[in-house]
Amino acid sequence: MGATGAIITDREDKEVEATVRDVVKRFGGSFEIESGKPWRRAVREWKDVGGVVAHLTAYGLPLPKVVDEMRQSGRDILVVVGSEKMPGEVFKLADWNVSVTNQPMSEVAALAVFLDWFNQHKEFDLDFPDAEVQIIPSGDQKRIRQTK
Amino acid sequence: MGATGAIITDREDKEVEATVRDVVKRFGGSFEIESGKPWRRAVREWKDVGGVVAHLTAYGLPLPKVVDEMRQSGRDILVVVGSEKMPGEVFKLADWNVSVTNQPMSEVAALAVFLDWFNQHKEFDLDFPDAEVQIIPSGDQKRIRQTK
Repeated sequence: MGATGAIITDREDKEVEATVRDVVKRFGGSFEIESGKPWRRAVREWKDVGGVVAHLTAYGLPLPKVVDEMRQSGRDILVVVGSEKMPGEVFKLADWNVSVTNQPMSEVAALAVFLDWFNQHKEFDLDFPDAEVQIIPSGDQKRIRQTK
Repeated sequence: MGATGAIITDREDKEVEATVRDVVKRFGGSFEIESGKPWRRAVREWKDVGGVVAHLTAYGLPLPKVVDEMRQSGRDILVVVGSEKMPGEVFKLADWNVSVTNQPMSEVAALAVFLDWFNQHKEFDLDFPDAEVQIIPSGDQKRIRQTK
């Protein structure tokens, strides 16, 4: 969806890392993945090099109201989503607390909708360099092009 | 995200049903949930009453190219997503095979992006009648209104 990488915090998971790297190898692009870093350190290191932080939460300000300001900031954004209840501290550390509707929903779903808005739908036209396989869109079957 | 209900096929899960109904009771609206029906029967019953079927798959036609036609059909749409590898038969049964990018991605994420496009972002302004609690959007804290 146009993200350049992901950090899984607080739990090292080499299996997920390997799976993601394998998908990137096959489908191209340069998506980065790491895991295991404590979440506070991930946020601090991000901010230390000039990045900003967005926290996706049903309690936040509506995505349509803040997304243009976020994009126009021109900064590298770390989007924080929780797999479980988030510590209240995250609200304070975040530069933006953003809601994808104010109803409970899947975190990964909220992240995808956020990226679609943030990237202004350009992720539908991205090229993924060095792919081994490419899907050829089809109305009725699976079509794949082997490129290597 | 504007869907009116969900059917979990082939596996009955009363716990998920209860959780979803509890969320609906607290946050309002009339979202319906059922589980356990074989998937072919769910599709057949949907079609028998005049509904149409969309299958979300990375192999399908790009969402931006087909979503207007789908909306303009004015029909009730069953959106099929798989938690595991889908039988090829689904491609043939579907009225539309639709891709949310042609890269591998989370099914629930694809579903959310689909609904956002299909509903033309109106799900951000939906009212959810009979809610017990409502979230008040905030830039820096959790704010909830008890309505009952």
